[in-house]
Amino acid sequence: MARTPDPHFAQRIRASFDRQSAMHLIQATLPVVEQGLTEIHLPHWQGVEQQHGFVHGGVVGMIADSSAGYAAMTLVPADASVLTVEYKMNLVAPADGEKLIARGQVVRPGRTLIVTKAEVFAVKDGKESLCALMQQTIIVMHGKVEK
Amino acid sequence: MARTPDPHFAQRIRASFDRQSAMHLIQATLPVVEQGLTEIHLPHWQGVEQQHGFVHGGVVGMIADSSAGYAAMTLVPADASVLTVEYKMNLVAPADGEKLIARGQVVRPGRTLIVTKAEVFAVKDGKESLCALMQQTIIVMHGKVEK
Amino acid sequence: MARTPDPHFAQRIRASFDRQSAMHLIQATLPVVEQGLTEIHLPHWQGVEQQHGFVHGGVVGMIADSSAGYAAMTLVPADASVLTVEYKMNLVAPADGEKLIARGQVVRPGRTLIVTKAEVFAVKDGKESLCALMQQTIIVMHGKVEK
Amino acid sequence: MARTPDPHFAQRIRASFDRQSAMHLIQATLPVVEQGLTEIHLPHWQGVEQQHGFVHGGVVGMIADSSAGYAAMTLVPADASVLTVEYKMNLVAPADGEKLIARGQVVRPGRTLIVTKAEVFAVKDGKESLCALMQQTIIVMHGKVEK
Repeated sequence: MARTPDPHFAQRIRASFDRQSAMHLIQATLPVVEQGLTEIHLPHWQGVEQQHGFVHGGVVGMIADSSAGYAAMTLVPADASVLTVEYKMNLVAPADGEKLIARGQVVRPGRTLIVTKAEVFAVKDGKESLCALMQQTIIVMHGKVEK
Repeated sequence: MARTPDPHFAQRIRASFDRQSAMHLIQATLPVVEQGLTEIHLPHWQGVEQQHGFVHGGVVGMIADSSAGYAAMTLVPADASVLTVEYKMNLVAPADGEKLIARGQVVRPGRTLIVTKAEVFAVKDGKESLCALMQQTIIVMHGKVEK
Repeated sequence: MARTPDPHFAQRIRASFDRQSAMHLIQATLPVVEQGLTEIHLPHWQGVEQQHGFVHGGVVGMIADSSAGYAAMTLVPADASVLTVEYKMNLVAPADGEKLIARGQVVRPGRTLIVTKAEVFAVKDGKESLCALMQQTIIVMHGKVEK
Repeated sequence: MARTPDPHFAQRIRASFDRQSAMHLIQATLPVVEQGLTEIHLPHWQGVEQQHGFVHGGVVGMIADSSAGYAAMTLVPADASVLTVEYKMNLVAPADGEKLIARGQVVRPGRTLIVTKAEVFAVKDGKESLCALMQQTIIVMHGKVEK
């Protein structure tokens, strides 16, 4: 990255997450925000299920997309915001567990484009198993502070 | 397709949709189910918003994924079910409008794998504009009826 | 597009194609260059085959990627160039025929990012059948003329 | 994996690679074949270049796709073959170097579907730098030996 990232990135990202009604709707939380890495956690509750009682693939996608997007946001200057250009996700197993953990990580930083990945794990009886794998492209909007 | 698809596909698909709590949670409906094509509609309401007041990209992904998966399901026999293997989605504009329409379509049918696409449009003052474009791979599980 | 595209785009694109050694290596040609659309043709010859005598999936990818990238280039100003950010391709059938046709098209223009698609058809006994389907993101480099 | 993989996988894979004319055409080699992992190497020579003298993105895609497909093939029984269903690739930097190394790896094995990834590095003055990142879905064709 050409410019110094924001030292207060964690605070800025938590404030952004808190303004996302859709994250509240599904009861997601953001317990981990580190440089180049975030985690979104989701309890398994009835409202996010699909027809077989697993967590809906679309909800898995929501937390994968957001965790990786916020991982990218940890690396941008305070006066920049980020947008998802696109992502590709493989759903490799049913999201079967008491909770889900989406781990978003920056794979390749850049001034304009950032490539990230996310892995989503289902936690069952304390054991994590991979249920989704995502590769994502993020664009950095310089000079556009997220309000 | 090697085998005759189910003549009662629309009824079977509506029943499946009705069992998806996550679709109720976001207030999505499934008004269109035709051979190789479905539409999911979503009103714009506060619970599905992201931090700028647009519909959350993850919610856009949910209805895109589901509309295309159900489009594939219109073509499979009554004793088969479908699973999303993977999808790739470009978010091309903010989901800004009174409602969203996700149009899922089969692009390439097959006995084991079906390739689909979905387009998501935001409807504002009666005018549709494209906000997302998805390409998806579906696997058919023969002999596994969806309960 | 915010700026007037180059009226001489076809000439500029053909010159670019001619400088691509890799396109000569596989014997690809560029017979169609229209606004938002190009076609790359490839004869089926022994040098581009995989182990079963079909055209190699990687070669199918090469002409898909290039046809869609040049489709994007038809829409940019004369002082801009284009780069592939990423693409996603489904290989839906073996590339079995006397020749392949890759049709690249712009799906969603934009000043910085352009979303395109490509379809690759195998032509056998004069009949076209789909063998690959691609969705791609292109970035426009303004002020960087391709030399 | 439900069944014992082939102990002679390396021999079988090298024989398959040798039958791929397209790999000879671009002068690619397969120096590394291990369980769940392969490497394809490509010297930078004039025939594989694009218009700026870097290795063509399509050629980068060819070796990424093949290295990951062969990584999947290391895990399947002797009487099975593999096909690429689809892949998604980010081109993150120009392929600028004396040679390229594509490292394909299995991310998630399965009886019918295998998810893989590939990273392509350009080697310049002995230093590797990432130029492409791919996520891929492979289907296993049981009972179809590759001849």
